[in-house]
Parts: sequence; C-alpha cells; structure tokens
Amino acid sequence: MSCISLLGSVVWGGTGSVPEVKEGITEVDEVVLPSWVIPVDTDKVLSDHAVIVDAGRIVDVMPADKVATQYSGRKTTSLPGKALIPGFVNAHTHTPMVLLRGVSDDIRLRQWLETVIWPLEHNFVDEEFVREGAELAILEMILGGVTTFNDMYWFPESLCEAIVKSGIRAAVGIITIDFPFGKYGTGPDDYFSKGKAAREKFLNEPNISWTVSAHAPFTCSDASLEKVRDLSNELNCPVHIHVHETEEERVDSIAGNRSSMSCHQSDEKCSPVANLRRLKLLNERLIAVHMVWLSDEEISWCAEAKASVVHCPTSNLKLASGFCRVSDLMKAGVNVALGTDGASSNNTLDLMAEMKLAAILAKAVGKDAEVVPAITALRMATLNGAKALGISKVTGSITVGKDADMIAIDLSGPSLWPSPTLPNAASPSMSCPIAGFDPVSHIVYAAPGIK
Amino acid sequence: MSCISLLGSVVWGGTGSVPEVKEGITEVDEVVLPSWVIPVDTDKVLSDHAVIVDAGRIVDVMPADKVATQYSGRKTTSLPGKALIPGFVNAHTHTPMVLLRGVSDDIRLRQWLETVIWPLEHNFVDEEFVREGAELAILEMILGGVTTFNDMYWFPESLCEAIVKSGIRAAVGIITIDFPFGKYGTGPDDYFSKGKAAREKFLNEPNISWTVSAHAPFTCSDASLEKVRDLSNELNCPVHIHVHETEEERVDSIAGNRSSMSCHQSDEKCSPVANLRRLKLLNERLIAVHMVWLSDEEISWCAEAKASVVHCPTSNLKLASGFCRVSDLMKAGVNVALGTDGASSNNTLDLMAEMKLAAILAKAVGKDAEVVPAITALRMATLNGAKALGISKVTGSITVGKDADMIAIDLSGPSLWPSPTLPNAASPSMSCPIAGFDPVSHIVYAAPGIK
Repeated sequence: MSCISLLGSVVWGGTGSVPEVKEGITEVDEVVLPSWVIPVDTDKVLSDHAVIVDAGRIVDVMPADKVATQYSGRKTTSLPGKALIPGFVNAHTHTPMVLLRGVSDDIRLRQWLETVIWPLEHNFVDEEFVREGAELAILEMILGGVTTFNDMYWFPESLCEAIVKSGIRAAVGIITIDFPFGKYGTGPDDYFSKGKAAREKFLNEPNISWTVSAHAPFTCSDASLEKVRDLSNELNCPVHIHVHETEEERVDSIAGNRSSMSCHQSDEKCSPVANLRRLKLLNERLIAVHMVWLSDEEISWCAEAKASVVHCPTSNLKLASGFCRVSDLMKAGVNVALGTDGASSNNTLDLMAEMKLAAILAKAVGKDAEVVPAITALRMATLNGAKALGISKVTGSITVGKDADMIAIDLSGPSLWPSPTLPNAASPSMSCPIAGFDPVSHIVYAAPGIK
Repeated sequence: MSCISLLGSVVWGGTGSVPEVKEGITEVDEVVLPSWVIPVDTDKVLSDHAVIVDAGRIVDVMPADKVATQYSGRKTTSLPGKALIPGFVNAHTHTPMVLLRGVSDDIRLRQWLETVIWPLEHNFVDEEFVREGAELAILEMILGGVTTFNDMYWFPESLCEAIVKSGIRAAVGIITIDFPFGKYGTGPDDYFSKGKAAREKFLNEPNISWTVSAHAPFTCSDASLEKVRDLSNELNCPVHIHVHETEEERVDSIAGNRSSMSCHQSDEKCSPVANLRRLKLLNERLIAVHMVWLSDEEISWCAEAKASVVHCPTSNLKLASGFCRVSDLMKAGVNVALGTDGASSNNTLDLMAEMKLAAILAKAVGKDAEVVPAITALRMATLNGAKALGISKVTGSITVGKDADMIAIDLSGPSLWPSPTLPNAASPSMSCPIAGFDPVSHIVYAAPGIK
C-alpha cells in the first residue's frame, strides 16, 4: 500500500510560459482532481476542486465541475480518496548525516558531538560522503512527501549536485564554524570563500536558494557572526543557526562561563539570543533552530524582529535538550517551522512524524489540548517552512502563482478508516459540537509517514 | 515496500504436541532464519541464529549452522535483512473506538469525553459497532506488528468474536463503571454479570485472557472498586484501570473536592493511588494506565506492590494530560508497558510509534539522554506488556517454551540505510566509543510503522 504519491517539483519543475488560448478554453499541462485540496494558506478544505497546473506553476484552483468551461488539460490526474496538500518543507536538517544514522544513540548531546559525531565527521566526510549521503537523504525525504529542505553541512557544492540530480527544492548553506574541519577547510575565511564559490556555480538553478549557515553561538565568535551578518546582507539571504538548543547554552552564556563548552563565544554576559540581537542578527532573515530555552522577553524580541524559529521536537527529546515553548512562540506571532534535524539525532527524515509530534507535544507543554490544532501543524510543516527560508512566494501552499510543489496523501487504509469520504458518523441529530471526520486530522494524526 | 511481515500467533497459534524424533534429528514445523534474533529477555542481539518452532511454540533458539545436526523443519523461512522480535503488546486500548477516529481532536479531556465521546458512544455503541470496530482495529494492529492487546470496552462478547476470528491474542475486560451505559447495561452488577457470562463463553479460547476493567477512580465508587478487587481475587486475573490521567484527578481527590468531575468517588481525602492502596488494589495484579501525576512516595508504593504501569505517551500529550515520570518509575523497579490508548485520542494503534515516542520523551522528561535506551523501549513494547497482563509465561519474548508470537522487521529501505548488514562505518581504527550500527536502534528509532 503506497500512501504518498509525490507530485511535487520533481515532476513539475521548470519556469513559466504563457498558456495557449483556444476558443475561450485555455490549454494547460495538467488538471489534478483529488477528493480534497488543502491549500494551507487559509484554514479551508476544498472538496471536489481541481488544481490547474501549467509549466510547473499553479494557475488556478476551482470547482471540479467548472474546469471544462475554462481549461483543457493535456493530462488529467484523478486522485480519488486522496488529499492534495503542499509538499512538506523540512526546515532544518543535515542531509549527509543519514550515513551516520544509528551510529550512536542514547547518550548526552556534548558527549555525542565530541566523542562520536565530530570525530567520525572529521575522518570520513568528503565530497563523495556528502553527495552520496545527500542522495540517500533526498530519496528518503521524497518518499516522505518533502519537496523542500533546508540544509547545513560541509561541501555544499556536492550537496548541490545531489539536489540538481533529484529535482527537489532546497536551501543550501554557506557554512561556517570557528575551527578547521577535516577535509573541508581551515576556518571562517576559507569556508566563506568556498561557500560563495559553490553559490556562484549553482546561482542559476531555480530550485536552489542559499543561506549563511553559522553552526552555533558556542562555536562562532562575535567577529565571525558579524561576517555572517554582513554576508547575509550582501547576498540578501537568511542566516541559519542553531540557538538555545540546551539549557547550559543559555545559562552559561548569561553567566559568562567561558570555560563551559556550551557558553557562547562572546564576552557579553547575556543569552545567545540577546547577543544575536545586539549584533543585529535577530531580524526577519534569521532562521533560529531549536530555541528550546527562551524567556518571555526573548520570545517577544523574536516576534518583534519577525525572526523564524525551526522546531525539531524529535531531536530535542532524543538528546534530552528540553521542550520548546511552541504555543507561546506562536501566540506571540513568531513564525514556527518544523525540521527533522539530522538522521543521527532523529533517526529519520520523516516530517509527517515531526508534524504529529509537534502538534501533540505543544499541547502537553502548553497545558492546553486546544493549542496547535491539526491545521496549524500542517501549516508549520509547509508554509511556515517556506516563510522561514524566504521562498514563500514560490512554494509552501497551493496558491495561484506558486510552483506546483504538491503531494497527494492517500486517506484509505486500515489506520485511516473511517475515511473522510464516508457520511458523517456523528449524524446531525447528535448533540455533538464537532461532527464528522476531518481530512486534516487524518493527515496530521493518523496517516502513515515514510514508506 | 512492505516492512513488517507478521509471523506471530496468527500463523502459529495452537497448543503443543510432542515433536517426532527420527535418527537423532527432531522433525519440527518450522525453522526461521532471520539475520538477527532479538529475544528481549536479555539485552543480547543474536546474529546468524535460527528459531525453531513446533506446534505454535518456540522449541529452540540456536546458531543457524548447527540446526541441521538437530532439527529437520517441515518448512524453512529465510528472512535475510530482517530482525525477528517478539510481537508487540499493546497494553492499553479501546479497540472499537477506531470507529471514532478523528471525530474530535484538539479539545480538552473532560470536554472531549463529556460533549463528544460519551454522547456518541451512548447512541451508537452496540454489538455490531464493537465487533466491526474490533475487526478493523485488529487489522490495523496486525499490520503494525501487534500480536497481543489489552482492551477495555463495552460488549466484551462481541470483542471476543473478533479476536477468535482473527487469531490475535488479547486480554479482554469485564468492564464496569458507576452509571448506565447506552445499549449495554444499567450499572456494576449488570456489567459484572454480563462480563462473567462472556468470560464463561470464551474460557476455552487459548488466545483470550481476562481482566476486571474498572473505568477510573472518578467513575467508580469505593464499593464498586471493592467488588472489582474481590472479582479479581476470585478469578485470579488483573485489574485494569485508568489512574492519575490528569493533574486535577490527583489534586481534587487529595483535596476531597467532590464537586469536581475529576475527583475520585471516595470520601477519603487522598490521591487515587493512595486510595487503591488502602482498598488493597495496589498489588502485582494492578494494571494502572497513564499514571501521569505521581509523587516519589506513590512511585515507591507501586514498586513495592509490584504493580504495572501502562504508559500511553501519545494520548497523554494529545489530551494535554502531562508527562509520565517513566525513568523514575523504571529506576524504582516498576514494570512499565506501553499502550496506544483508543484511536480517538492517538489517532492510530501504531505501537512502534509509541515505542519511539516513549524512548525519546523519557529522555527529555528525565533530563538525561541515557535513560530508556532502545533495548529498554523494545522491552517495554513487548515483554513488559506481557508481564502486566500476567501472560509472560506464554508470550512477550523469544524464549524457549513460549508461544511463537514473533514478527519480522525489514531493516532495508531508504529510511533504514545504512543497514546493520553493512560493515561498521566506524572502523575499529576510529577513536569512537560506540562503533557500528545497531538493529535495535534501527527498530526503535528509524523503522517505519503501520503500512
């Protein structure tokens, strides 16, 4: 039983062209006819609607019975029993780390990094590792309905080769950290130079966008972070950074405990978020990953600055990092997206699992079963990710004018019965405030993930 | 890609017979040859071992290359790339509630029960609802590798019909609550009478065991709980009850706030756990479900009494009930099993997802990434469930003498690569304390669940 058919950019990539017009009927590449369209740019679920695709773009969303009066599709794709949704956006991962999947579990974050992950990476990571790891990761993500991902890893040029080969959309990082790394380079200046060269080489690839990816406040000095900021300004692209992943990172930075490996590399005795704010990095281009430990004031700064947060619940739980205050961030108006993190701390790239976990975990953390309802979780897994990456004009929702990055989710199968296609089990005669079955609930809470 | 082949009691049910002996070679029904055997009764993973099955029972576990000197299988099942593990035990569910899947999400527990679930149940639940719901739920569980489940629901006779039809193993509840329920009955005496009659009818079914299932302290009076205790003593079967699901249940009971719907139905001003202890229900036959809110003293009482706890992490998060202190319970020596709860608060019956969530959530709650390592989570999902149900002599691990309730998990596929079949990526020359890939990690943290 195959539950996800990928219909996204992989199939429909490409740039636009003007549709032909014949006798009032517009000829288009494809008419897609699912049982439901869930655009996610509103809370609406559209039944019996068609999505009209031409030259890789969504050109119309309309009632299915009106299509013939307006469009003629060179291809018609019927998807009975399936919901058409935007492709998932995995807003934080380290794709080549799939090759380290399961190599080390059930140990503490610093020990995990310092005694296992970093030594392995220093010894093994090269162009081939990155290209082959990224290809495997992209395959896993495509099978799981991901059509866009945001990556932070070494050898971005090799990553780009895998992206172009697959047709998936991705944000690639010009990566930096304040120490030499294995076979890649010697330090920030070398990393910036190599990252910018990779960017130049792939600048014309429509599916690739760029970030400046600084590893973390505890591995990047203020001087490096200022260069990151300047490069982000120069290239007009987001800054992608791990922030406040652990309690120690925040506490030790506020205490100025520079002997701690978790303390930020700044002489300022303040939280890393406060320091990023001081350095003018807390702005609408910031993609702050994890953000597990935050005060009310720090949350309000993020909201004011229009920074995005990427929540990685599986990784935060598995590494015992703690609980992100997702509902408080969202109430404050912060854009919260979702990421799987790397496969060595998850251990999958299954964004559907991340979406369910984000929805249910936020309820327990916020002590309120009403927060992060299903449609909000679905938006976090799609549109909010595109917003964080600064590419919501081209992807993240089923909206006219955007690229056709869409997936179909099969809502049949034993774990999805009763299907939303059935008449409401809760009949209108029932004194029940919420009647009937909801395809959004089935997608978020019941649909299986990666095949 | 089918990732789980069910080999369990469904295929190999039945009672034992004496194997034939021919010239020093014992003829048996089946020789199973997976890449790994993970018995779970120890931490060991056995490579290149065979499991010998005869008349539905495990008669030997031995190195594969020695099988021919001792056994001749009427059937040989080769499972390359697959791990053979005990079937999962879903230690708490309400199977027919799959028919209410997705009917109501993202609302608070009491509102969910009182305005949606209970009214729907009162109006719709009858023999047919239970039989058809149970059949669907059993199909979902079998596809997810569950070979035993523990159920609490109305019309246990109809549930038994579905169990017998499927061949799955289950513990069925003689259910009670202190109010009339829809089409089923009028109150405790009626429920006990009907439950005992169902038990009598199916007493000779080898795959069915029984519990006395009291709904909860807030719906069962002390007098009812005393009858539950006496019936449990008389029938020598476990008591299955929801306890301390919410903070209000514990706090309001201690305060003696009888106007609260969450307060236990006792005049004792103490926690429900303390009251169960007073009523002599806290013992080795108690299956206490949820146990989200517990003091250190209550945990030590559970350990002393050898009571079992069933942890239902998805349900606890989704209903914002809180965080069970799993690692503290286990450190104290309490047997902790896993349950999906009903599909209207989960919304699946996917015990593999529950197992991963239990492992990672315990780390964040316990603030220690080392607690509940993968093998412990796998044991919670199998053997600990069998122990809770009092049937660990017949199921829950791959142990000689037990029934062959086993499943094979495919460890190939993109989300499981690198496979444990590959040579260690972390070569012995690496200064890495944990080298190589572990099939137990892949099963708990990376394998897909229900197909």
